[in-house]
Amino acid sequence: MTKPLKDCSVAVVGLGLMGASLCMDLKEGNLCREVRGVARRTRTVLDAFFAHAVDLATNDLQTGILGADIVILATPVRTIIATLEEIGPRLWPGALVMDMGSTKGDICAAMAHLPAGVQPVGGHPMCGKETAGFEAAECGLYRNATWVLSPLPRTSPDALALATELALAVGARPLVLEPERHDRLVASISHLPFLVASALTAAVAEVGADDPTVWDVAAGGFRDTSRVAASDTQMFLDILMTNRAAVLAQVERFQAHLGALHDLLASNDEAALRKMLAASQQARASWKPRQR
Amino acid sequence: MTKPLKDCSVAVVGLGLMGASLCMDLKEGNLCREVRGVARRTRTVLDAFFAHAVDLATNDLQTGILGADIVILATPVRTIIATLEEIGPRLWPGALVMDMGSTKGDICAAMAHLPAGVQPVGGHPMCGKETAGFEAAECGLYRNATWVLSPLPRTSPDALALATELALAVGARPLVLEPERHDRLVASISHLPFLVASALTAAVAEVGADDPTVWDVAAGGFRDTSRVAASDTQMFLDILMTNRAAVLAQVERFQAHLGALHDLLASNDEAALRKMLAASQQARASWKPRQR
Repeated sequence: MTKPLKDCSVAVVGLGLMGASLCMDLKEGNLCREVRGVARRTRTVLDAFFAHAVDLATNDLQTGILGADIVILATPVRTIIATLEEIGPRLWPGALVMDMGSTKGDICAAMAHLPAGVQPVGGHPMCGKETAGFEAAECGLYRNATWVLSPLPRTSPDALALATELALAVGARPLVLEPERHDRLVASISHLPFLVASALTAAVAEVGADDPTVWDVAAGGFRDTSRVAASDTQMFLDILMTNRAAVLAQVERFQAHLGALHDLLASNDEAALRKMLAASQQARASWKPRQR
Repeated sequence: MTKPLKDCSVAVVGLGLMGASLCMDLKEGNLCREVRGVARRTRTVLDAFFAHAVDLATNDLQTGILGADIVILATPVRTIIATLEEIGPRLWPGALVMDMGSTKGDICAAMAHLPAGVQPVGGHPMCGKETAGFEAAECGLYRNATWVLSPLPRTSPDALALATELALAVGARPLVLEPERHDRLVASISHLPFLVASALTAAVAEVGADDPTVWDVAAGGFRDTSRVAASDTQMFLDILMTNRAAVLAQVERFQAHLGALHDLLASNDEAALRKMLAASQQARASWKPRQR
């Protein structure tokens, strides 16, 4: 399969933040032959169509993917896994199947069962927001974002090249990682922060139940530290349930560090406390997040 | 003391983010008779003077506060406490002494020892940033921020009115709180988030020591959840050491919530996990941070 992206029909399944933003970039940049959007809800289908985010929109999965050169699954992780099974038999021979799910192990395992001839490449663009849905979609979401690509052993070099071309076309930076390595790394920098933000929000809400003034004094520190707790619950449940071992290991790692800080403060060991805080201060201040 | 703010000489001790931003607002808005800045380092004194952030600048504390109607201490908490002792005997009779420290219990206790006639009002504007120092200062930092005021039993209504006038003049929203209540609430929404961010950064740095690619996949989730870990270590050490009991209680509260999430994930109890995550999702999504 040597068709370049600009000659491809691209079907995006799931028109939430990630899927719809991708459609918009593809359309806006005229990057492929046609953009098809598949959404479960009719409301989303109509929104996407009338916003010119897609050339064709449907809530019928089989219609949406029929004859597509590239199929991109952009739903919660376990829906991606179920969809792979559902669409397998109907995919065009040689079609590239990608996904945008936040865990890769279970998805790539499911991709291995796709019919021979179909070309699977797992993927995960690192640019979520806590706001979800079509309304949150925007052009340029992928600009400068790391886009993890996880080809399978069966994946052809041409298919990986096409997936890479697509990521580059929307301004992302492709990074090829094994599914297991991806899942371990994102457990640390994404799934752990989510659980931490969720527990922090629960702790503050408990204080707020006694003294609602806590919400009036809450400012930038709480706002940012807790932001991702507002993320879609179903999306994160799918992530956590398909990355349990790695997430649990990272939570335990975090608990050890927080426990150490707690104990140093409790025992008034200011010198050791200073050392730990200064190490994190330096690590965080020297890391430069990517700017869009 | 009934002199309005516009007739007052205001001395700000400490020209970091908070102090210098206040000076800039006072100067820019022509809100008082004169703005004096006191900084320890000569470099900061010169920076403030040549940036027109102050009318007069000095690194001599006694010169800086001499005859000032309002003295505002904007250094780390334990420096504020030491400075109160140092300046007490030299303060103008009737002078209003405020501070901008992040804990109020120990500071207000120290304020109680100021000479009779001096009018103390503890204060804490809720608008920090993780960037510190004069370079980070900006006009408008206090706009729409909650500014906690903690008058002492000895504080006159006129003095509290003047402190309130000052907070309002720079666009903040004054909120009177007892020191102990303030410290309990900020332990929850500021000091706990800092320790959480610090432990999170330590956990990710540990992963990064084995696999530096973790820094390439880190994106918005880690960026925001860990942001405050980059805060000045000395500033936060002072905060933690002067609010130990309340901070430890909040860390333990948080640990209980995170431990519960960990155990539900470990035991595969998806329904209970969903319930906890959804409660935090709703609490966080329904809280609206103040916009400047």
